[in-house]
Amino acid sequence: MRTETVEITGHLMDSGILSRVLDDIREYDGDYVIDRFDVGHDAGDISRAVISVSAEDDEALQRLLMRLQTRGVNQVDPGEAEVSVCEQDGVFPDGFYSSTNLETEVRLNGSWVLVDNPEMDCGLVVDDSGATARVHTLPMADVKAGMKVVSGASGIKVRVPISTREEGGFGFMESIVSSEKPQAVLVRQVADGMRQAKEAGKKVLWVGGPGVVHTGAAPAMVELVKAGYVDVLFAGNALATHDIEAALYGTSLGVDLAMGQGVEHGHEHHIRAINTIRKAGSIKAAVDQGVLTGGIMHALVTQGKRFVLVGSVRDDGPLPDVHTDVIEGQRAMRAELADVGYCVMVATMLHSVATGNILPASIPLVCVDINPATVTKLADRGSSQARGIVTDVGLFLEQLAVELVPDHRRR
Amino acid sequence: MRTETVEITGHLMDSGILSRVLDDIREYDGDYVIDRFDVGHDAGDISRAVISVSAEDDEALQRLLMRLQTRGVNQVDPGEAEVSVCEQDGVFPDGFYSSTNLETEVRLNGSWVLVDNPEMDCGLVVDDSGATARVHTLPMADVKAGMKVVSGASGIKVRVPISTREEGGFGFMESIVSSEKPQAVLVRQVADGMRQAKEAGKKVLWVGGPGVVHTGAAPAMVELVKAGYVDVLFAGNALATHDIEAALYGTSLGVDLAMGQGVEHGHEHHIRAINTIRKAGSIKAAVDQGVLTGGIMHALVTQGKRFVLVGSVRDDGPLPDVHTDVIEGQRAMRAELADVGYCVMVATMLHSVATGNILPASIPLVCVDINPATVTKLADRGSSQARGIVTDVGLFLEQLAVELVPDHRRR
Amino acid sequence: MRTETVEITGHLMDSGILSRVLDDIREYDGDYVIDRFDVGHDAGDISRAVISVSAEDDEALQRLLMRLQTRGVNQVDPGEAEVSVCEQDGVFPDGFYSSTNLETEVRLNGSWVLVDNPEMDCGLVVDDSGATARVHTLPMADVKAGMKVVSGASGIKVRVPISTREEGGFGFMESIVSSEKPQAVLVRQVADGMRQAKEAGKKVLWVGGPGVVHTGAAPAMVELVKAGYVDVLFAGNALATHDIEAALYGTSLGVDLAMGQGVEHGHEHHIRAINTIRKAGSIKAAVDQGVLTGGIMHALVTQGKRFVLVGSVRDDGPLPDVHTDVIEGQRAMRAELADVGYCVMVATMLHSVATGNILPASIPLVCVDINPATVTKLADRGSSQARGIVTDVGLFLEQLAVELVPDHRRR
Amino acid sequence: MRTETVEITGHLMDSGILSRVLDDIREYDGDYVIDRFDVGHDAGDISRAVISVSAEDDEALQRLLMRLQTRGVNQVDPGEAEVSVCEQDGVFPDGFYSSTNLETEVRLNGSWVLVDNPEMDCGLVVDDSGATARVHTLPMADVKAGMKVVSGASGIKVRVPISTREEGGFGFMESIVSSEKPQAVLVRQVADGMRQAKEAGKKVLWVGGPGVVHTGAAPAMVELVKAGYVDVLFAGNALATHDIEAALYGTSLGVDLAMGQGVEHGHEHHIRAINTIRKAGSIKAAVDQGVLTGGIMHALVTQGKRFVLVGSVRDDGPLPDVHTDVIEGQRAMRAELADVGYCVMVATMLHSVATGNILPASIPLVCVDINPATVTKLADRGSSQARGIVTDVGLFLEQLAVELVPDHRRR
Repeated sequence: MRTETVEITGHLMDSGILSRVLDDIREYDGDYVIDRFDVGHDAGDISRAVISVSAEDDEALQRLLMRLQTRGVNQVDPGEAEVSVCEQDGVFPDGFYSSTNLETEVRLNGSWVLVDNPEMDCGLVVDDSGATARVHTLPMADVKAGMKVVSGASGIKVRVPISTREEGGFGFMESIVSSEKPQAVLVRQVADGMRQAKEAGKKVLWVGGPGVVHTGAAPAMVELVKAGYVDVLFAGNALATHDIEAALYGTSLGVDLAMGQGVEHGHEHHIRAINTIRKAGSIKAAVDQGVLTGGIMHALVTQGKRFVLVGSVRDDGPLPDVHTDVIEGQRAMRAELADVGYCVMVATMLHSVATGNILPASIPLVCVDINPATVTKLADRGSSQARGIVTDVGLFLEQLAVELVPDHRRR
Repeated sequence: MRTETVEITGHLMDSGILSRVLDDIREYDGDYVIDRFDVGHDAGDISRAVISVSAEDDEALQRLLMRLQTRGVNQVDPGEAEVSVCEQDGVFPDGFYSSTNLETEVRLNGSWVLVDNPEMDCGLVVDDSGATARVHTLPMADVKAGMKVVSGASGIKVRVPISTREEGGFGFMESIVSSEKPQAVLVRQVADGMRQAKEAGKKVLWVGGPGVVHTGAAPAMVELVKAGYVDVLFAGNALATHDIEAALYGTSLGVDLAMGQGVEHGHEHHIRAINTIRKAGSIKAAVDQGVLTGGIMHALVTQGKRFVLVGSVRDDGPLPDVHTDVIEGQRAMRAELADVGYCVMVATMLHSVATGNILPASIPLVCVDINPATVTKLADRGSSQARGIVTDVGLFLEQLAVELVPDHRRR
Repeated sequence: MRTETVEITGHLMDSGILSRVLDDIREYDGDYVIDRFDVGHDAGDISRAVISVSAEDDEALQRLLMRLQTRGVNQVDPGEAEVSVCEQDGVFPDGFYSSTNLETEVRLNGSWVLVDNPEMDCGLVVDDSGATARVHTLPMADVKAGMKVVSGASGIKVRVPISTREEGGFGFMESIVSSEKPQAVLVRQVADGMRQAKEAGKKVLWVGGPGVVHTGAAPAMVELVKAGYVDVLFAGNALATHDIEAALYGTSLGVDLAMGQGVEHGHEHHIRAINTIRKAGSIKAAVDQGVLTGGIMHALVTQGKRFVLVGSVRDDGPLPDVHTDVIEGQRAMRAELADVGYCVMVATMLHSVATGNILPASIPLVCVDINPATVTKLADRGSSQARGIVTDVGLFLEQLAVELVPDHRRR
Repeated sequence: MRTETVEITGHLMDSGILSRVLDDIREYDGDYVIDRFDVGHDAGDISRAVISVSAEDDEALQRLLMRLQTRGVNQVDPGEAEVSVCEQDGVFPDGFYSSTNLETEVRLNGSWVLVDNPEMDCGLVVDDSGATARVHTLPMADVKAGMKVVSGASGIKVRVPISTREEGGFGFMESIVSSEKPQAVLVRQVADGMRQAKEAGKKVLWVGGPGVVHTGAAPAMVELVKAGYVDVLFAGNALATHDIEAALYGTSLGVDLAMGQGVEHGHEHHIRAINTIRKAGSIKAAVDQGVLTGGIMHALVTQGKRFVLVGSVRDDGPLPDVHTDVIEGQRAMRAELADVGYCVMVATMLHSVATGNILPASIPLVCVDINPATVTKLADRGSSQARGIVTDVGLFLEQLAVELVPDHRRR
């Protein structure tokens, strides 16, 4: 039996975090003794718990400690980080430290080094080639033989984002998802979050699925692009194709957007739309050639905004801009994360989870979908900062445009 | 083997109705031969099919013929209606004709008599006490011994409402339900339907569940009441209680409507709200006494509008206005159907199905819910005229108020 | 500002209960100071928190204290219960104590009196006519002028059921709902729970919806009735009607159970089945007369088991056994609760919530539905002991019969 | 206005196909006159309709004709196919014929040539290098400059699979999806379908999502592999990872499969499982090295069965066997389709739609999911032969193993 003393600090009393920590210990077949519990007496106070956790052997203990760090639990005496050398490209050493999406520091040679670009389920690569050591996250696929990677849970500290619930700011919910919320208030809160991000000089990242087009929200989204509230869009082949199909033929998977008469599917329109863009060479080329003259993708191109389209196995075509290699696609997405200050995910489970996987926990995150399962899944996968809004995507974006675009008029 | 010749007329080619008729025959273990099929050659033309249907014996055939009448299929030679006398209160004679919600005529003594108030799953009661015979629908629970009731399928003709799909009007969908529709267009169509009903001097019937209050849509609904677009409301104890709870305490099942912070449930507020109204004697009395000063129920009372609240087994209290006997409640609902020209069902499966059960097929019907199952269920129960809109109730009603109430301003 | 000191004892560290208590205080606009927190050091230890809670005035404080009691939070110095006299039939005095479903004691004249039949959202009626005072819960509708009812939160103690999570027994989940669970294990746990209840001489209560019949599970359920695992059934008109319809005509809302070919709906079969039973006089009479010879209702009658059918506003007919007055129906349900030791709810939201409303928290409760929302709703309404299983009802009951009925053979 | 005469033959009366054809014409802004309609008089008879369809110009007409062919509608006088030469790699000529998943013939030089491997949304590539011309489908991404591709709708005939509904065989439903079906009957029908495919010397193709593992169905699936009912598996990184994680650590995303106690997510186990397989080099290598000793993937390897894993943007790792390029992945999937005689899709929307995209309509297809939306989406995307079963995946596979594996015993 091996034991380590850990601590956790924060609004422990009212966040339910402690029960999750103890659940984790149980799940990993560990045991615990609560050594101290300094309770914040008043509602706004910080509490601190010191807990001795035990596991069968050192390997089990190290893994349990890594797990607890995803909750913001640190070792009282973290010691020095242990570093191993990778022996194979694309393979971490056994016992590698699996990273969290929290702000992380690593103790190397007695100094705490802040980890660049926090991301969950990565390795921590130590670069000591310069005067001062640096540490950054790296996904498994990108690691190379010879790289130095942190092993075990020693010498690591994480910091949980400060919850602003008590401060009247944007209150993150922890997986509280419901369609039974006053939706107009939620729209306003998202609008406020975007405004604050922009005022702070940050970028707003959108992640969207084809439902954005199917629900007739493309015009609202175009206005949001033009008003500067869409700096980057992550999507798949489907959103871009249906948007372009609608621009070229006035249909989206056969839904006649002007009349509101839906039909089953649109066979042939979408495949022809893709062929047209492939012929032009790229979405931008199609805009430049005057082939594509409207819609969300057109707005992004003409406004000089960024987009990353990553393919999936169900894609037709795909559009020439689509990354068909998903690992390449993930790299392209990571490259756009710098300076993102707000993220909104709309009508897509696949790309929402993909973005949640690479996003630091410090970035406010709202997930909007008519399907509660999408939002629940996101939170369950570790994006605990995610706020879920179960609502109609079309009406939500329409209302958001009313909030954010001064001269937005109802179509 | 007994055989009867039936016919069906209408847009048979493009409505899929014929395949449903043949499915019915199969389901009832019957057989058929298509004797004639006069096809409407052009898109707008009417088609007519003449079909010989057979079943094992006369009882089976009569039941199959009744079933086919729900599709608008009539006997070519309907003959005279057969009338039986009820022997027990609340029990129809064996072989009674089970009614449809379509416009129906019964042939008695050589004359066709139009049936009053079409309603499905009822008996047709013949009143020949006056100079001319009259026929009206009557639910099973209300029949009395000695009443004359139509038996078998002879002597009966039904007429399907004219589909206006081709005429560019309000196109009813047959169970086509999707959240992937341009929602703004659907909002406008509902607004148009309500306006047309009002212009025609008809009443607008609302059927609502507590989600109307939970989603923060009560203020929008209050404005719609004041603007005259809510003539009658059918609901249960829950909608009224949560509305009154919100008016008295600013909460609805614990959802703080001003802040958008939801909590699990509200225990105690709602039971106290009910007690308060019971003390006053009725919702109207509570308004008159100045106890209840806001919300949907208050608006209905002050605007002189009608409401029927029918209880369910899960009710607390209930409010004094609630019909605790469901059969009494159904009678109270039926009493409000005269002159209804448009019906919208919002966020309730129970009361939507209940209303669908008693509504003639001639009344346009829209069902709005975030849960696709609610809408599907309604259509499956026989309300084939129902149009389903899968969307967020809160945002939908907000948008509807924007469409219908000239000076509606966003909260 | 009024203040009271409360305490809570239990597995506070790992149940998340404390964060809910503090959420409640915030929701009621109260404030708190944590005076003491004695932490159970080891995993199985009991913790105890002493908290000073404040609210604006005495009324607000009393209501907050009542609210906290639903979480098992008691006043450190509860004092004597205050008793008020009802002035109107069916109306509690202002400030009445709204009961929880927990084991409750009331202090009267210096003695603690255990409350009979705990039920949430009721009043506590004091009967001091005998030698010793007695207290029992009473729903609002049943209170009479002159009755003595507890007011405010003083003089009341509640006790939360002992969680058996650590003891390896049947672990209740708190609203953890998922279709992604090893379903076979869950079936076995339900079977074990039923066996334990029967071995303890307790009754098994079933609450069922029509999905039991639609999914083809009626034969499995009949076997469970015969094997003695269904002592009482709570249901509506629909389950009984579709079961009887299937027994009489081999159909259930048009689903041909032998072939697995579903059709939309069954119009006419169900209304005729109801008429047949009404003619017989009751379900039992139909069995006695040889009219009804199979199905779930037949099995209940022939095995001498109990059932309570309560109507709803969407009912056709209804069957003669159905309570059409929902308040009468609730009374009939309450009358069957004595000695119930296990409750399983299958495929019904309406009757599940209704039963959850009247069931003491001490009775293990499992809710089985293919729709996650049903299970979530039940837990949100206060039945926090509910365990949810999201699965296919037909296959679940089939598997349950395999577990519980020795000679059960696959059809 | 351009006009063409088309015909359709089959069970037009009872399949609803004609109404869909006319809907398509309306959707494409076309017009029609029904020239002839030869009705099959008896229930089993074949009907034939001859329709003149018109569209604004030739391009619109050609596209409408292509659309109608997805319904099985052919030109009465199809003429000769028109062939264009591709000018760019990966781009079809404007006006290319967009293929269906139906059996297709192309008329070249007066002869009808059967198209190899029908697949929807592809081009038809003509290879006239040999003695006799051959035509095969090719997805857009794989076309090369210089290839000859069919343009327009002339010279093409399709044939709809013979519905066996009347013949008592495996009845395909057209998008009829319901959880309210007798599930045991549906299990048996799937078992029968698999047995028939095996008896005919055909392969059974499975498409699976991680829910197979989460619901505890892996042991049942392993038995089905061993019994020879899984010839090929299409899946993503998730199914394989969770299966391997469960085999290595006894967990799957943190669900403890033995105890049935679910937790939120499993962080760290799955990423370590992936690293372990990457270190081994491949799943087969891990089996050969004795690293992986159980689970579905192990069974496939040891039984010499095929699997194709295709990645998605949300993947961690991924496993070394995963195709990270989705277009490569589609090619790998296509390569396994030869001799597939039955396809079952379980608990995955992404890979089900992907497989539906490439599967000929002639292969029986069953989609099993607890979420109705998955099944609906599949049918809406053009896999009209899909039969949907909304049920619990874990219990379904358990029951399927009971049906198909003689010595299968309940765990």
